[in-house]
Amino acid sequence: MNSPLEFYFDFSSPYGYLASEKIDAIAEKHGRKVRWRPILLGVVFKETGAVPLTKAPLKGEYSLHDFARSARYMGVPYQHPENFPIATQHAARAYYGLLDQQHAMARAFAHAAYRAFFVEGRDISSLDVVLDLAAAQGADRNALAEALGGQALKDRLKAECEAAMAKGVFGSPYIIADGEPFFGADRLPQLERWLETGGF
Amino acid sequence: MNSPLEFYFDFSSPYGYLASEKIDAIAEKHGRKVRWRPILLGVVFKETGAVPLTKAPLKGEYSLHDFARSARYMGVPYQHPENFPIATQHAARAYYGLLDQQHAMARAFAHAAYRAFFVEGRDISSLDVVLDLAAAQGADRNALAEALGGQALKDRLKAECEAAMAKGVFGSPYIIADGEPFFGADRLPQLERWLETGGF
Repeated sequence: MNSPLEFYFDFSSPYGYLASEKIDAIAEKHGRKVRWRPILLGVVFKETGAVPLTKAPLKGEYSLHDFARSARYMGVPYQHPENFPIATQHAARAYYGLLDQQHAMARAFAHAAYRAFFVEGRDISSLDVVLDLAAAQGADRNALAEALGGQALKDRLKAECEAAMAKGVFGSPYIIADGEPFFGADRLPQLERWLETGGF
Repeated sequence: MNSPLEFYFDFSSPYGYLASEKIDAIAEKHGRKVRWRPILLGVVFKETGAVPLTKAPLKGEYSLHDFARSARYMGVPYQHPENFPIATQHAARAYYGLLDQQHAMARAFAHAAYRAFFVEGRDISSLDVVLDLAAAQGADRNALAEALGGQALKDRLKAECEAAMAKGVFGSPYIIADGEPFFGADRLPQLERWLETGGF
């Protein structure tokens, strides 16, 4: 099969960022495309009762350590953001706004937003920063600002979050390949074997 | 350094079982010993507010799928137990009781208990099953039964759980190598690189 991988993530998710730096190359190696689907973990956690990793007793401290070590292990630059976690609805809506115009621009924006937050220390919860990042990818800043103020992109993101949960998505990153779910950047090796072997 | 790895686990933890089938070989390859330390996740979760994986909405269903797939990925036999999770205080106390007599017997018992639960479908929450497993490793069944009825092993397990939490242990498996913590069977590759390189 050559159906695209579905890659669900939140722009504030460290492990989502780590996966984002690897997923396209993994897919390409196996003749696959990737559908990037930003969601809001805040919306998902409201349903599941989960709490952000870094807020969990004992696990929180370990997680901060593990984000950085996992990044080194995977060879991905990482600088834990001073303000974390953040609200990512502007970034996610901007992604869907750009996606409807030009697929490649949306993908480039998503990479830029993740790197801005997890490498450059920029606050991507800010509407201005999101618009700057989109404009740097060639987007029409004013048109995007107007779209982000409208109802359509709000409804779109809400629908994407609901569709994700209906597929079982409970965290970030969550990747689906031919119906098989993989949760976590640490499941990329299993995803690779799955793509290589057609299931195991 | 050649200090032993500390391996914390609950006898009812699927990922703990998967790690138990690999940890000794990994350690041996790098000239290390392993200190096996069973704990009770129930005691830990009372402190941290965490819930068993399989009880978490959406994540629960995924976890059942992931236990089996991760076992196949790691080449470890796995049959999800009908009754799960279970209370493991008898198994954990028996381990410490045997440990004080003979280190190798305790290790063999731990392997046997994990395999009994996760391969053979035996109910290791049962005192009788625990005693049978210990006796099969050469333990004195009656002496162990008496020790399991006494206060000393109860206090010992309680102290081990408290000592583990004091070191930051919040789940199973949790491995500490020269002060560096690794949580999850999926962190064994990072542990291996750590042992190979002395840190990264």
